[in-house]
Amino acid sequence: MLAKGGCPKTMLSISDALEALEGRWRLLILFALSGGPKRFRQIAREVPGITDKMLSKELKSLEAHKLIRRDVYDTFPPTVEYTITPHGLSLEKVLDELHYWGLAHRKKVIGK
Amino acid sequence: MLAKGGCPKTMLSISDALEALEGRWRLLILFALSGGPKRFRQIAREVPGITDKMLSKELKSLEAHKLIRRDVYDTFPPTVEYTITPHGLSLEKVLDELHYWGLAHRKKVIGK
Repeated sequence: MLAKGGCPKTMLSISDALEALEGRWRLLILFALSGGPKRFRQIAREVPGITDKMLSKELKSLEAHKLIRRDVYDTFPPTVEYTITPHGLSLEKVLDELHYWGLAHRKKVIGK
Repeated sequence: MLAKGGCPKTMLSISDALEALEGRWRLLILFALSGGPKRFRQIAREVPGITDKMLSKELKSLEAHKLIRRDVYDTFPPTVEYTITPHGLSLEKVLDELHYWGLAHRKKVIGK
């Protein structure tokens, strides 16, 4: 595919994807949720280095991009749970390739 | 792979990859360069919306991550060319998957 290097239509679709996934956190949050529905505190524990403020902001944007769903349960106090949507799960291959590339990159740049 | 959702080792390798590729521009610059070596002006034309200041900053960081190479030719005035490295080209599968997902995302969210 890279043979089409620079082709405007492909540039647009990659740009669309990056706009939805922008930044370091969104894919990591999706990866944490790919293990099953989770509450705010659980996600915050699994995504190293994210602040509560950032997590809250990114969860809202992931919801707007239809990548996760937010459910509120009528308990006292109310319980809020986040679940990855099928559209979110369709990122599996992107996550796979980032994982494999990340391993190779660590070896190449950090040497271990 | 997503069945390992949340596993710390996989979280680390995805995080490593995202740190090297952070932001909207780096992958788009790499995609433009995957079509062959290019000068600054050519890259700026192919990556829609990028400012010269941002392009200059991202080219430096891509070089630091060993994803591109910068060559200076002894012409008058000197010519500078950027070339994607084999390590940069190893991102082909990530770019492929982002491309396919971007197409599906556009259909899902924008409906065309």
